Amino acid sequence: MTRTYLAVDLGGTNSRYGLVNQNGEVLRRGRFPIHSYRGPEPIIEDLIVHLRSFLDALSSGQRPRALVVGAAGLIRAEDGVLVAAPNLPGWKNIPLADILGQALSLEVRLENDANLYALGEWFAGAGRHLSHLIVVTLGTGVGGGLILNGRLWNGSFLSAGEIGHVIVEPEGRPCGCGGRGCLETVASATAITRTAREWIMAGQPCAFSGHPDDLTSRDLYGLARQGDALARRVFDRAGWALGLALTNVFNILGLQGAVIGGGVSAAYDFIRPSMFEEFSTRVFAVDPNRIRLAPAALGDDAPLAGVPVLFQKSGDPQAHGAT
Amino acid sequence: MTRTYLAVDLGGTNSRYGLVNQNGEVLRRGRFPIHSYRGPEPIIEDLIVHLRSFLDALSSGQRPRALVVGAAGLIRAEDGVLVAAPNLPGWKNIPLADILGQALSLEVRLENDANLYALGEWFAGAGRHLSHLIVVTLGTGVGGGLILNGRLWNGSFLSAGEIGHVIVEPEGRPCGCGGRGCLETVASATAITRTAREWIMAGQPCAFSGHPDDLTSRDLYGLARQGDALARRVFDRAGWALGLALTNVFNILGLQGAVIGGGVSAAYDFIRPSMFEEFSTRVFAVDPNRIRLAPAALGDDAPLAGVPVLFQKSGDPQAHGAT
Repeated sequence: MTRTYLAVDLGGTNSRYGLVNQNGEVLRRGRFPIHSYRGPEPIIEDLIVHLRSFLDALSSGQRPRALVVGAAGLIRAEDGVLVAAPNLPGWKNIPLADILGQALSLEVRLENDANLYALGEWFAGAGRHLSHLIVVTLGTGVGGGLILNGRLWNGSFLSAGEIGHVIVEPEGRPCGCGGRGCLETVASATAITRTAREWIMAGQPCAFSGHPDDLTSRDLYGLARQGDALARRVFDRAGWALGLALTNVFNILGLQGAVIGGGVSAAYDFIRPSMFEEFSTRVFAVDPNRIRLAPAALGDDAPLAGVPVLFQKSGDPQAHGAT
Repeated sequence: MTRTYLAVDLGGTNSRYGLVNQNGEVLRRGRFPIHSYRGPEPIIEDLIVHLRSFLDALSSGQRPRALVVGAAGLIRAEDGVLVAAPNLPGWKNIPLADILGQALSLEVRLENDANLYALGEWFAGAGRHLSHLIVVTLGTGVGGGLILNGRLWNGSFLSAGEIGHVIVEPEGRPCGCGGRGCLETVASATAITRTAREWIMAGQPCAFSGHPDDLTSRDLYGLARQGDALARRVFDRAGWALGLALTNVFNILGLQGAVIGGGVSAAYDFIRPSMFEEFSTRVFAVDPNRIRLAPAALGDDAPLAGVPVLFQKSGDPQAHGAT
C-alpha cells in the first residue's frame, strides 16, 4: 500500500489541493476560490468543507497520512501557527494546524509556500538529482527556496532563500521590504507590468490597444510572442535582473542549478537569453554551461509535489539551519 | 598531552607559520619573506628549511600531529595539489602535500587560505559560537569563507563564499573576474587606493602630500584618523558596498553574523557606519540588531587558529557541500 499525503496551497485568490503519493505524483486535485476580504474564519470553514468532501471521496486505501498546508508569510512550523500572511488580510497568529487537525482528524503541518514549491521542483521537477539548488518564483512578488545538501535551508531567521530581495539596482525603485532596487522591483509580474506601462506612457510604441492601466503580465507575454518590441524589452530587462541576482547567489554558494518558476516563467523563452548572457559573463570561476538553469516543470503542482519529503526519515520535518 | 598542529599561511610576499593547540591558540610563531618571482622550487626549499628548524626547536611533547598549508588560489584538497595560485607566478599543479610530507615526515593537508581564515575566526575569533557565519577578508582582493551549521561550505565548484564577486554596481568598474562592479572593485585595498587617487587627480582636496601614485591604503587609514574628509569618504564608500553585499548574503542565507577581516579592516571604525546604515535599512525580515557584525579578532593568526577543526571527528577533513 502506497503512502499518500494531502497537500494544500493556500493562496491569496485561490486554494489548490491534492492527494500526493510518495513519489511526489499528484493523484487527484481540487481547488476553490478564496475571497481574502472575508477574513480567516469563513475561509477556514470553506477549506474544511472542501477538504472533508475530498477526503470522503477517497477509497480507504488512499487515506492520507497527514495534511500539509503551504502559505505565504511568516510561519511558525513547530506548532503550525500562521503568524502573518501578506496576501490574507486579518490572518494573525492563526493556529491553523490545530484547527484543521481537529476538524479533519489528521496530523497537520504548516510550511512556507515558497519552501514547498522549491521542495517540489527539487523532488519531482526540474531540479531533480541536484544536491544544491535555488528555486525562484516570479509571481506577484519574487520568492525563492534554497536546497543545500538535498535539504531545505531555512537559515536562522526564517528569511533565507529570499532572492527577491537581492539588490540588482542599488538606487532603483523602492521595494516593499523597505529597500530599493531588489530583484522583485524589476522581475515580478507587478514590476514587469509597471515597467511596460511607464514606457508606454512615455510614448514608446507598443501593440497593446487598451489603456496602459489595464495591461497585465499575461498581455505582455502574448505581445512578446507576437514580436512586440516593447514587450520583448520588458522581459529582457527581467532576465538581466535575474541573471545578476543568480550570479550573486552562485558566487556565494556554488550551487548546481536554478529553477525558474511562478507565473512569469511562462515567458521563460523571452527571459532566458538576457539572463544567461548576464549570468555567464559574470559568474565566478565556474563554467556556466555546467550549471543547470531551467524553467519549472510542475506548474501549479509544484507546491504539492514536495510534501512527501517532509516526512522522510522517521517522520521528522525535513529542514535544517533553523537554530 | 595536548595535540598540536603546524599551520602555514603561504602568502604572495610573506609566509607565516605557527604551532597551534586544540583550542586554536597559536603557541609559537615564525615567518619568512617570499620572493615570488623566484618560482616554486627555491621557495619550497626555503619553506622546508624554515619548518625543519622550527620543528627541531620543539620539545618532543609539542611534536605536531600534522601540517596544514593555506594558500590562495585553486586547491585540490583531496590529494594536496596546488593547481594554480594568483599571487605565486609559475606555481601550477604543485603536489605540495606530497613534497612537504616526504621532507618533514608529517601528514600534510592543503586548504584555501580564505577558508582557513574563516575557520579560524569562527573557531577562536570574532565568530565564536555562531552556527551560520560569513567571514570577509578585505585585502589586496576581497575574499570570503562561509560557515553553515558549524562547517565550512564549499559548494559544488569550490567557488563558494566569494562575496568579493557579489555585484554592488552593475555598471561599475571592470573586475578581474570578467564581471563589473563586484564588491572587490570598491572595497579591496587596491580599489580603495584607486578611488582616492582618482578623486585627488580630479582636484578634490586631500591632506596627502606625496604623489597620488604613491598613496597606499595604509596612508588612507592614517589620513582618516587625522580627520581627512576624502579618506573618510573613501571608507564610507567601501562600507556602503560591503553593506549592500552583506544584505544580499543575509537575504539569501539568513546567517547569524559576519566577521570583517583582512588588512583594510584596520579601518573598521570608518567602514562600519555606512556599512551598518546600508545593511540595516535593506536586510529583509530580520532585526539587524540581532545579527552580529564584528571586526576580525585574530589578525594574522586567523588562518592558523582554525586548523584543529580540520581534524575533528576521526581525522576526516571537515567540509561539506563539495559534491
